[in-house]
Amino acid sequence: MSVKSGNIKAIEHRVSDLERSRRQGHQGGVFWLTGLPGSGKSTLAFELERRLFDAGRQVYVMDGDNLRHGLNSDLGFAPQDRAENIRRVGEVAALYAGSGMITLTAFISPYRADRQGARKAAKGNFHEIYLSASLEACEGRDPKGHYKMAREGKILDFTGISAPYEAPENPELVIDTGVMAVEESLRVLLDYVESACRVKDA
Amino acid sequence: MSVKSGNIKAIEHRVSDLERSRRQGHQGGVFWLTGLPGSGKSTLAFELERRLFDAGRQVYVMDGDNLRHGLNSDLGFAPQDRAENIRRVGEVAALYAGSGMITLTAFISPYRADRQGARKAAKGNFHEIYLSASLEACEGRDPKGHYKMAREGKILDFTGISAPYEAPENPELVIDTGVMAVEESLRVLLDYVESACRVKDA
Repeated sequence: MSVKSGNIKAIEHRVSDLERSRRQGHQGGVFWLTGLPGSGKSTLAFELERRLFDAGRQVYVMDGDNLRHGLNSDLGFAPQDRAENIRRVGEVAALYAGSGMITLTAFISPYRADRQGARKAAKGNFHEIYLSASLEACEGRDPKGHYKMAREGKILDFTGISAPYEAPENPELVIDTGVMAVEESLRVLLDYVESACRVKDA
Repeated sequence: MSVKSGNIKAIEHRVSDLERSRRQGHQGGVFWLTGLPGSGKSTLAFELERRLFDAGRQVYVMDGDNLRHGLNSDLGFAPQDRAENIRRVGEVAALYAGSGMITLTAFISPYRADRQGARKAAKGNFHEIYLSASLEACEGRDPKGHYKMAREGKILDFTGISAPYEAPENPELVIDTGVMAVEESLRVLLDYVESACRVKDA
């Protein structure tokens, strides 16, 4: 998206990313969990946050339920609102990562173009993590009963049932949460994040 | 603002604010610098960030120039865009503070209602800091030459000249940066922030 307001020039933050990373012993980054409803995004994100925090990391989860109460409270579920929702999340996640935070996001984010925008915002510091549990697995689990309601037509435009999910084409990591147990998935995620956030000196 | 999307319930972050504060030795908070153009908001914010960082704090500056490249790149300078700009900044600053960050914001934010919204978003963790340098002082300094251009009609709706600035009525801190030197202002700010961010145990 182009910048609508002219004559704006970016000011260098006086504390550099490298300084922040060195002091805290790791870099920030955006770890973008995507997958069907019920694929385990929030469960894994909050549990991963807990473990990374316990390991001494700076870490924060952004998820739809929380953001919709504040920043995105002006947005509904119409297609353009969903796109704007993900655009803002991508931008805020990028800001967070720039401040040294390991930023975990848990959004269905069904469209490739929207995820591509989030990747662009994070300027190379973006990790697309596809929780590839199949529709059958997610619907079979249906932890919130939403699939049932979608099948009954009580929820419209439900991803996987009445709205598309565009699977990632080149994600940095794929975990089939339909097959892998939570504990095992967490171990894979933890290893991946720790490795990705190792400080790379200039 | 009410929440447009129904059936959304806030999920508790598994890592509590208190845990974050205890580990890093201080709380987060929003420190909202407001004042006329040229009153020293960005200068003080970035220098304060440097010193707080050197003192071992988690700190980050949000300012208009940077945010307008990303999150707010869809906004111009029309009145409703300015209001939305400040609303989003307030929400993101509140999120940051919730993740334990000392969040410094540097925005003219000329309207009381907009600052009130930012205060509300931060849920009690908000410090309005009024840099009260007079119009004469700011215009006399005119570091970017914008006042001159505003007087010549080359910039429209310029706060203090052709657009109003509503001074805070009950700010937490007032610093007359038209009179006080930068170094002195920084000392006052540093003392204030350190005191406000002391960990208050439950």
